[in-house]
Amino acid sequence: MHADQSFQHPGHRPCAITRHRGGETLGALDNVAEEVPVALVFNGISHAVMMATPRDLEPLAVGFALTEGIVASAADIYDMEVHMLPAAAEVQLTISRQAFMQLKERRRSLAGRTGCGVCGIESLALLDLDPEPMPAAPLPESLAPAIARAAQELPRRQALMRATGGVHAAAWCGLDGAVHAVFEDVGRHNAMDKLVGSLALDGVDLRNGFVFLSSRASYELVRKAARVGIPMLATISAPTSLAIDIAGKAGLTLASFCRQDGFTVYTDVRPDRAPRAQRTAPRS
Amino acid sequence: MHADQSFQHPGHRPCAITRHRGGETLGALDNVAEEVPVALVFNGISHAVMMATPRDLEPLAVGFALTEGIVASAADIYDMEVHMLPAAAEVQLTISRQAFMQLKERRRSLAGRTGCGVCGIESLALLDLDPEPMPAAPLPESLAPAIARAAQELPRRQALMRATGGVHAAAWCGLDGAVHAVFEDVGRHNAMDKLVGSLALDGVDLRNGFVFLSSRASYELVRKAARVGIPMLATISAPTSLAIDIAGKAGLTLASFCRQDGFTVYTDVRPDRAPRAQRTAPRS
Repeated sequence: MHADQSFQHPGHRPCAITRHRGGETLGALDNVAEEVPVALVFNGISHAVMMATPRDLEPLAVGFALTEGIVASAADIYDMEVHMLPAAAEVQLTISRQAFMQLKERRRSLAGRTGCGVCGIESLALLDLDPEPMPAAPLPESLAPAIARAAQELPRRQALMRATGGVHAAAWCGLDGAVHAVFEDVGRHNAMDKLVGSLALDGVDLRNGFVFLSSRASYELVRKAARVGIPMLATISAPTSLAIDIAGKAGLTLASFCRQDGFTVYTDVRPDRAPRAQRTAPRS
Repeated sequence: MHADQSFQHPGHRPCAITRHRGGETLGALDNVAEEVPVALVFNGISHAVMMATPRDLEPLAVGFALTEGIVASAADIYDMEVHMLPAAAEVQLTISRQAFMQLKERRRSLAGRTGCGVCGIESLALLDLDPEPMPAAPLPESLAPAIARAAQELPRRQALMRATGGVHAAAWCGLDGAVHAVFEDVGRHNAMDKLVGSLALDGVDLRNGFVFLSSRASYELVRKAARVGIPMLATISAPTSLAIDIAGKAGLTLASFCRQDGFTVYTDVRPDRAPRAQRTAPRS
């Protein structure tokens, strides 16, 4: 049943970055995890699109069909083909007539938009991966002190994290890195939405500060920030390839691995600040 | 515009646990982050359900409406009411006629099932929160050595994590904790699906081992495991309240904060092993 896949995608790609550490700045190439939309098509009907790392896509499709109850066993999957597209992938599955009838029945009772902004979209054509460039907005004159201050101030504001050890935080910071508001949630996109909603209700100008996130930077977080004109995201953990691409297209400055003693810049819209790769070996 | 909310949910709840550390076992009460389905209803039409921490739900709804482009500004939201249900929440928003017409237009082109198994579902009634109990399956005789071994073996198998610093891993472990297979992805539910799909394609009996995850334990991961009969999940990070509830209903053993030197058990289906709370103060 395995389709012939002579090429297994490595799941990461090189990316020009600028690493800031202890007052020093170094241009380099680093590896970032690939995130692309993957459409699952059952008997010709596009059923779901996920943001995923484009390797092991046959196991992904089979596992999704099983864990979502679309098929009762792998034997109900008669055929499978993986198509790698320029910036997306599609897995076409042929499932048993009985499983497909049940899926069609279930689809009739399910319709809707998504929580995180991606899953729930039915086909690749409906994805919104080309944001308009945002209008220019002020950014910190020097990122290092602003990020260091936010990284230092955030932990003491994460009350729910201290209580449970299991939630994400989104913080609104002034251009000097002072943390003005923090919201927490089990979902990072919810923490972001709570923050944006609160700022909007309070009439805060979203173009005059930056968002600091305790999580990774994935596509949907950058897309959400760009939609409301937030000029910069700083995240504690790593970015994905698509987060970087969307940030670049939208003109959003993206810094990740942000700690008190350093950070890495992936996109920087300030004049002459864009990361330039030097001939440095990737970290892997 | 703020609805009257005399009660702000704390976002966490106490939970009876058993903590294992350095060969010692201690029953205790701990706090876990609340995760409940939250439905967003625009002008009477249920539009999206998210798994979220049920506090700050007005900012959440406003932020979602803004970052998903449903309204152009908070002024397009005329009214908002938060309804706390027994194990869910609903936010009813009244938005401007123009924004609602655009939303209806967009909904006509969007329909589909979800990536992670939750978002994309349109209304609370369609959620599947009552799994059937799973058939009994073998579990490690003693959890401590099995979890310690898995926690020790996993890092060296996380090649994509080493390269990028930004992906989750799902591992299949024997009852002795030996790591037999590892899949990585930017999405934890994708890593899980890749693992389940690969095991199914290889004909592995999913009832004869356990899954070790580098991530937190959220609802959708436990639900996916239960659907295919995996008897135990061990996760490096924290569980959510709904993950624990679903594990309990399905009869799935759930251990979190799993490290080489200890772990915490939230549900344990082995006879006489269920966590029993002692009169110990919560950690917060």
